[in-house]
Amino acid sequence: MTREMHPARWGDPKLAGALPDSTRELVEYAFGVQDRPAVEVVAVPPSALSEEILAELRGIVGVEQVLLDDETRRLRTRGKSTPDLLRARSGDLADAPDAVVRPADHQQVLALIELAQRHRFALVPFGGGTSVTGGLVARRDDVVGVVSLDLIRMKALREVDPISMTAVLEPGLRGPEAEALLAEHQMTLGHYPQSFEYASIGGFAATRSSGQSSAGYGRFDALVVGLEVATAKGTLVLGSSPANAAGPDLRQLMLGSEGAFGVITAVRVRVRALPTVKQYEAWQFPSFADGADAMRLLAQNGQLPTVIRLSDENETALNLASHSNVGGDTVTGCLMVIGFEGTDVEAVAAKRGAVAALLTRAGGEELGAERGEAWVQGRFAAPYLRDALLDAGVLVETLETATFWSKRDEVYQAVRDALVAELGEKALVLCHISHVYETGCSLYFTVAAPGGDEPLTTWLAAKAAATEAMVGHGATVSHHHAVGSDHRPWFAREIGPVGVDILRAVKAELDPAGVLNPGVMIP
Amino acid sequence: MTREMHPARWGDPKLAGALPDSTRELVEYAFGVQDRPAVEVVAVPPSALSEEILAELRGIVGVEQVLLDDETRRLRTRGKSTPDLLRARSGDLADAPDAVVRPADHQQVLALIELAQRHRFALVPFGGGTSVTGGLVARRDDVVGVVSLDLIRMKALREVDPISMTAVLEPGLRGPEAEALLAEHQMTLGHYPQSFEYASIGGFAATRSSGQSSAGYGRFDALVVGLEVATAKGTLVLGSSPANAAGPDLRQLMLGSEGAFGVITAVRVRVRALPTVKQYEAWQFPSFADGADAMRLLAQNGQLPTVIRLSDENETALNLASHSNVGGDTVTGCLMVIGFEGTDVEAVAAKRGAVAALLTRAGGEELGAERGEAWVQGRFAAPYLRDALLDAGVLVETLETATFWSKRDEVYQAVRDALVAELGEKALVLCHISHVYETGCSLYFTVAAPGGDEPLTTWLAAKAAATEAMVGHGATVSHHHAVGSDHRPWFAREIGPVGVDILRAVKAELDPAGVLNPGVMIP
Repeated sequence: MTREMHPARWGDPKLAGALPDSTRELVEYAFGVQDRPAVEVVAVPPSALSEEILAELRGIVGVEQVLLDDETRRLRTRGKSTPDLLRARSGDLADAPDAVVRPADHQQVLALIELAQRHRFALVPFGGGTSVTGGLVARRDDVVGVVSLDLIRMKALREVDPISMTAVLEPGLRGPEAEALLAEHQMTLGHYPQSFEYASIGGFAATRSSGQSSAGYGRFDALVVGLEVATAKGTLVLGSSPANAAGPDLRQLMLGSEGAFGVITAVRVRVRALPTVKQYEAWQFPSFADGADAMRLLAQNGQLPTVIRLSDENETALNLASHSNVGGDTVTGCLMVIGFEGTDVEAVAAKRGAVAALLTRAGGEELGAERGEAWVQGRFAAPYLRDALLDAGVLVETLETATFWSKRDEVYQAVRDALVAELGEKALVLCHISHVYETGCSLYFTVAAPGGDEPLTTWLAAKAAATEAMVGHGATVSHHHAVGSDHRPWFAREIGPVGVDILRAVKAELDPAGVLNPGVMIP
Repeated sequence: MTREMHPARWGDPKLAGALPDSTRELVEYAFGVQDRPAVEVVAVPPSALSEEILAELRGIVGVEQVLLDDETRRLRTRGKSTPDLLRARSGDLADAPDAVVRPADHQQVLALIELAQRHRFALVPFGGGTSVTGGLVARRDDVVGVVSLDLIRMKALREVDPISMTAVLEPGLRGPEAEALLAEHQMTLGHYPQSFEYASIGGFAATRSSGQSSAGYGRFDALVVGLEVATAKGTLVLGSSPANAAGPDLRQLMLGSEGAFGVITAVRVRVRALPTVKQYEAWQFPSFADGADAMRLLAQNGQLPTVIRLSDENETALNLASHSNVGGDTVTGCLMVIGFEGTDVEAVAAKRGAVAALLTRAGGEELGAERGEAWVQGRFAAPYLRDALLDAGVLVETLETATFWSKRDEVYQAVRDALVAELGEKALVLCHISHVYETGCSLYFTVAAPGGDEPLTTWLAAKAAATEAMVGHGATVSHHHAVGSDHRPWFAREIGPVGVDILRAVKAELDPAGVLNPGVMIP
């Protein structure tokens, strides 16, 4: 059985420990601890769907697959942004879906979309429920109700092609499930976002996800060579070839469509041979700028490792404070973690040698494997720490963007300044770069501040200011968290009025009733 | 002054020699020479545009930039497919534009689009005039005339960013002009399609071009990080970051739009350091299948050289027969040419060593540099040979597709069989692979057959059969030649009815009057 997540917390309760003593001390010192336990509410608003609609839903997916109970609906309420958690922690489950429906296959999804068009209820595709941008909160103002389209039964590895090194995966597969099925064929997708343990294949595609190993394996949109999408106009099948000149690349119009154009029911992805060699290590650089320049050097020389990430001075200092048990040496400046994966010891060693030579030339100093391995161990753990910090009254959230190298420092400073201006000088703003390209990079910020009495209001103002800074400085509203409902106003500015017109025209064509994830993505 | 091409011939008349004796002998032996000189016609149909429209055109771009003379219009008639040449050679200039208009900048392009919407005349963007798929032949049935939008005055290198390694180029720049401007900054685009000497930046973007060095520098759509597009709804500016999760990638909707959605007035492209080291060499493989497997091995091991191309048995044999002066050894089986470019001798040597090891492991045998260098020398010359062969009554044309590795042989056989079935056993069908991906490759066919009395009719039937074979076997209608007006019926099948609906919806939104390159790309 696929694990489900509590609406107010991340992940598996067994793994969600209390705040570590060292962190609690830091929090006490920085902000003062203010214990704020979550209010436990189970009852959700009564379902708004008519008996007629429910009967038709049952006719499509079967009686057993239309779930109306409070607990199931509660577990499908919103995603995992800090605002989502804060709302749930305060007992607000107003965004609960009216029903959770579990189709078995593409044909049932098509039928559900047809029904939604006819009866004007919203259909919200649900994979892992890990959205952090309001991607699961449908607007209710023009629909008779909201149905969570849970893809949990669509979990097949439909096909593997070991010659072309592709595989066809269904959208309900969670990250570990997809990797386990591929591993039986000695294959891997190599897609490891922080949400990996819960997030789904359909979600990766619908949101243009990018994983921690993007330098080596590529962003999810670069992995997809084919798509099957259910729309109100019928089925769209794309992917005649790896690349072509047959008109616009419609795959790239469906990737990132966040359920607003249709429901992705299968993706054909490029896979790689399952790595047998994995080497992780850490480096230090005098400053964030030095480390970032080194990353640029690697990217522009075509010498990227599989994983590369660089913490700024603040993040480096805080990591050291909270993980004082790792490594004996003192790290000064900024910490970089790099990792190499492959199937050939010599090829990995050659790559590692070339990377190390460039990093040394760029002023880096090797710190050895221990801190690299420590990162691997903890790579999916951060969201648990957020819950513990929220319990202690600390406002914690992440946000991210991407820009070109020449604007890296400008955007970094602007976003930091905006956050500090809103949250006050006590706010901790950490940053790392974890996705690099020849022409630019991502910037991923982690923010911690005293929650105060109105943490939600406080955060929404800070988030607005930060996003304003991103767009104002020509950067994107999201490198890998998507648009959702949270980024829409700024997204409209990023693509301009003509871009918005295009998206609305496609939406009107594929979803004439406007019921597919309404209020999400399309400005 | 940018060179213009004759409507019935390729390139520079000074470079267009007669058929080499050795080739003429081959032709005589294979098909029998039947000299067929072109009919020289200069007069084009009278311009259909009203004085009112002409006055408005002159108001936008200036009197000097609205050209109506027969010669200018003749030189903007159609593109460079064999059917285009055969029509021109028979004196048919029916598709000549009614006027050639040369805007100076983006604002003038916007104004011309607005005028075209209002008066319902067709606007056909013209860059290098090298389309081989009917991309310059606008449908006349719903418009009052056809205006060739010649981008020849928009030739600026607007900006270079040496940190991000990007450059902003205007659409009228021909390949060599763009490279010359970038070379002043020690940069290169590295985009060398066979049409390089004439084709333009705008055309590369609008048709998703792919160059002979795509393995090293990437397809053109992979080079573009930003776009400025003039549409009937206003200006669209895209490209906030190298990559992002901010909705669908609208850049990939405009790339490949072939003038049907708007006019691309600038592209921001990724550039590379100008290579100082270039090494080309040849290898031989026992068979096409063996060579293709070796290519796949390189691609799937992340060890592609800058250039890689493999001729099948027929193309290898014919190349040897026509270039008997190159190289002393006899080549058996199939010839592969590989090339390495870079700025660091050691890095190039290391790469070459890794590639050579894999090719040897895959059954390849090194032939040395001479045949590799010979390919570099002749890389843009093939279209001249086509003219000489047409003069000798031989029907010559190329067509191409792409597919996944597991379907390579099936698609190769199907296209060959379709061509031979239409053109007869005497037809020569040559093939090479020149663009490879981890998951698949291109297949580029060159066909020669006796022209007979109705070469155009003969070819159109053969082309239809070959394209039918591509789509019937799930491959694309074009890897890098685009859709144009020639591929539309099959393109509709490739993307299916929902895909067609999407394109039509975007077209209706951005070009409500339907006057932007009507009849091109959109099925």
